[in-house]
Amino acid sequence: MTFRATVLTLYPEMFPGHLGQSMSGRAIERGDVVVETFQIRDAAHDRHRSVDDTPAGGGAGMVLRADILAAAIDAASPASDPRPRLLMSPRGRPLTQSRVRELAAGSGVVIVCGRFEGVDERVIEARDLEEVSIGDYVLSGGEPAALVLLDAIIRTLPGVMGNSESGTHESFETGLLEHPHYTRPQDFEGRAIPDVLTSGNHAAIEKWRHAQSLRLTRERRPDLLARDQVEK
Amino acid sequence: MTFRATVLTLYPEMFPGHLGQSMSGRAIERGDVVVETFQIRDAAHDRHRSVDDTPAGGGAGMVLRADILAAAIDAASPASDPRPRLLMSPRGRPLTQSRVRELAAGSGVVIVCGRFEGVDERVIEARDLEEVSIGDYVLSGGEPAALVLLDAIIRTLPGVMGNSESGTHESFETGLLEHPHYTRPQDFEGRAIPDVLTSGNHAAIEKWRHAQSLRLTRERRPDLLARDQVEK
Repeated sequence: MTFRATVLTLYPEMFPGHLGQSMSGRAIERGDVVVETFQIRDAAHDRHRSVDDTPAGGGAGMVLRADILAAAIDAASPASDPRPRLLMSPRGRPLTQSRVRELAAGSGVVIVCGRFEGVDERVIEARDLEEVSIGDYVLSGGEPAALVLLDAIIRTLPGVMGNSESGTHESFETGLLEHPHYTRPQDFEGRAIPDVLTSGNHAAIEKWRHAQSLRLTRERRPDLLARDQVEK
Repeated sequence: MTFRATVLTLYPEMFPGHLGQSMSGRAIERGDVVVETFQIRDAAHDRHRSVDDTPAGGGAGMVLRADILAAAIDAASPASDPRPRLLMSPRGRPLTQSRVRELAAGSGVVIVCGRFEGVDERVIEARDLEEVSIGDYVLSGGEPAALVLLDAIIRTLPGVMGNSESGTHESFETGLLEHPHYTRPQDFEGRAIPDVLTSGNHAAIEKWRHAQSLRLTRERRPDLLARDQVEK
């Protein structure tokens, strides 16, 4: 099944961007993923193709108009479209790996990228946009966030990663941060690979890795332990 | 002063990516920002230019070698380089807007992008890499995360945003999520702009916006209120 992403943006030339390379690039080439863009300006109706206006109540910046954005959404994704409609926004629910997995299990996503100061609140309500945040920082617009969301989704699609086993032990998939990795050479600037990893004792290796994951998570992200109530 | 970013990657063609467009593209054109890449493979010393090897202790995936990556870092950023050295990693400290501001106040950043299963732990220690996470999800590699980090930094540099006032009321800059925005038309599908915003009473507008920011933050991100102990 093809995963179809439709991105509404004022900068369609930013797509597919880095998604056109590496694993995701090969998935797009195979046709397993389609990333299409819709230029929001195509829904404008004046000769300047303007999409924004000054904020009601005053203040800096410009606001994306509800009527123009609604027309763009309706043109890009009719009411019968079963795909979720997302708005990349720092006000949104923080993206998690489990939400990535849910979205990847569907037929695709419609993603609205804001620019300027923001988007008229009424279109968020009227078109039931789900606000999604990729983190607690501010970007120039929704486009870099949409590219990150799509990268996270695409790598979990069947057949995209070379090794199907790879990925299941990674950070957040287990509720813990990932354990440290080592590879050859055995000695690097006087630092050795921990003995247990070269012992051949697989049970001891698994135990060590789990303990390291737990230690790192406790040290760096105690909030993850509290949130997920993982095995202590 | 030019802000100089050096990105160590196996996919230099992913850069400058979306940073080449819009506000950040103009900052690069003006020379206010330089985004240069260093191909990690250029530090390999066999004829296949291999950079990774199987994980000590077994398991799926491949690990980026400490010796190769250290050689790449040393070539791209000598010990006298004052710029912080970051490793984009889901195990890292979650990126915040205040860390973005700190990084933007410096002369630049050196960013290491991992791929494969991970990076040999010893190079993180030996080269004092600061692990930075852009969110609680897994990406195909560090490159999309590096592009997001640089976008967040570049938009805060002096002269990059058209309106210098814009941005200071945004989410996370105040410790609260941003209030709703409205613009013309007055009526959108039967939904009106809230009366207060068209009242012309600036004190009332400021009060309403602050109350809305507080309400949204309480509803969606009570963790931000607890974390920052902002004015209640």
